[in-house]
Amino acid sequence: MTTNLKQEERLDDLQIHGYEIIQHPGRFCFGMDAVLLSNFAAVKKGESALDLGTGTGIIPILLEAKTEGEHFTGLEIQKESADMAQRSVAHNHLEQKITIQTGDIKEAGTIFSPASFDVITTNPPYMLGEHGLKNEADAKTIARHEVLCTLDDILRESAKLLKFKGRFYMVHRPFRLPEILTKMSMHGIEPKRMRLVHPYIDKEPNMVLIEGSRGGRPRMKVEPPLIVYREPGVYTEELLQGYSMK
Amino acid sequence: MTTNLKQEERLDDLQIHGYEIIQHPGRFCFGMDAVLLSNFAAVKKGESALDLGTGTGIIPILLEAKTEGEHFTGLEIQKESADMAQRSVAHNHLEQKITIQTGDIKEAGTIFSPASFDVITTNPPYMLGEHGLKNEADAKTIARHEVLCTLDDILRESAKLLKFKGRFYMVHRPFRLPEILTKMSMHGIEPKRMRLVHPYIDKEPNMVLIEGSRGGRPRMKVEPPLIVYREPGVYTEELLQGYSMK
Repeated sequence: MTTNLKQEERLDDLQIHGYEIIQHPGRFCFGMDAVLLSNFAAVKKGESALDLGTGTGIIPILLEAKTEGEHFTGLEIQKESADMAQRSVAHNHLEQKITIQTGDIKEAGTIFSPASFDVITTNPPYMLGEHGLKNEADAKTIARHEVLCTLDDILRESAKLLKFKGRFYMVHRPFRLPEILTKMSMHGIEPKRMRLVHPYIDKEPNMVLIEGSRGGRPRMKVEPPLIVYREPGVYTEELLQGYSMK
Repeated sequence: MTTNLKQEERLDDLQIHGYEIIQHPGRFCFGMDAVLLSNFAAVKKGESALDLGTGTGIIPILLEAKTEGEHFTGLEIQKESADMAQRSVAHNHLEQKITIQTGDIKEAGTIFSPASFDVITTNPPYMLGEHGLKNEADAKTIARHEVLCTLDDILRESAKLLKFKGRFYMVHRPFRLPEILTKMSMHGIEPKRMRLVHPYIDKEPNMVLIEGSRGGRPRMKVEPPLIVYREPGVYTEELLQGYSMK
């Protein structure tokens, strides 16, 4: 397969359907969080899904491989990332299934039609935007810190774009849980399901997976802990079996 | 030791300091939740602690045994329960350390002085008060359902009674987590620490332990899961070592 790679870019094997993804070591590369989110998110047959802040397009590409969803859209503000994502879509011949759109999450509600998605996924910046960050325009800084968009922006726009009872899936950091749950309710995306991800069984969680429902009723199901490693370098059975981790 | 037990009452061994507690099978008897809360709550040397809805007085009695706190108070609305708690305090010769007060949580802010406690603990009714409960005046119904007081009542009164940076400890059900975290923040008791309690490692949690700080800054620490049983009938090491469980 011939795909034009730009300088320093590389093609990484996604371990599923033979798909590969273009990444650049100087930019934000996908991690375990994107893989876990793509397993936590349920996209049913015929449904349409939007990924907010899609970066390299990892989540739409994994969801296309893992679910029977009809169509997947990735929104990304950084032109270079969106271009890489678009070339990865083409590289895997997924142009009919996945659309990459360059644009700002803060304006997502005007870029797409209201109440038009069954599912929204997002792996947003985890860290609060802090004044004095060395390089606010740096690609990695934008992916990690709330420089260009906040949790409120994401929830407000998601509430506009989700159908009634549409599902919202997010991976985030546990230390922000009170704010996450409070703001989800506030924006009418009721938290319905949560799973904490622990690197080891006796360690604090370093990620939280959350599902919300637009217009849902309050009552949250907390799932058993998701443990990543059995011992250093050895994934647990659940990770090996369910997540195409090798 | 001679202690007057009323009809059907029994004395149960608390497995610590030789303490015993009076319980009545027809009323609410303490469970694992009270034991876990008494371990999760930190009462430091010289501090004063208030337990809201103390029932049999189990939490003040366990905290007296496990911590170096100066004084413990239990507030209970049901006269018969408060009387049992008072007799348990006397039975264990703890009258100088523990005060049992009969009164309504909804008026706690006027029963005690404002900002007078370092710590507040509570093992409140978990279930929402529902119209049509068969017997709203039944002792067990009052202990389990929000018939006489709601989560809002507890948080509002706790905010009045805690000193600045005073600590609030609660055990509750995970399905109400979004509401719990939202309302804690709303009442100025910021969630700071949380631990989920799972009966088994691969099961959903059935309890959540929460610490809040009056006037604290938002940032929550989520702890490793607390697993109760290794296999049916066999407690995990943590439970055996840290909780005086036999």
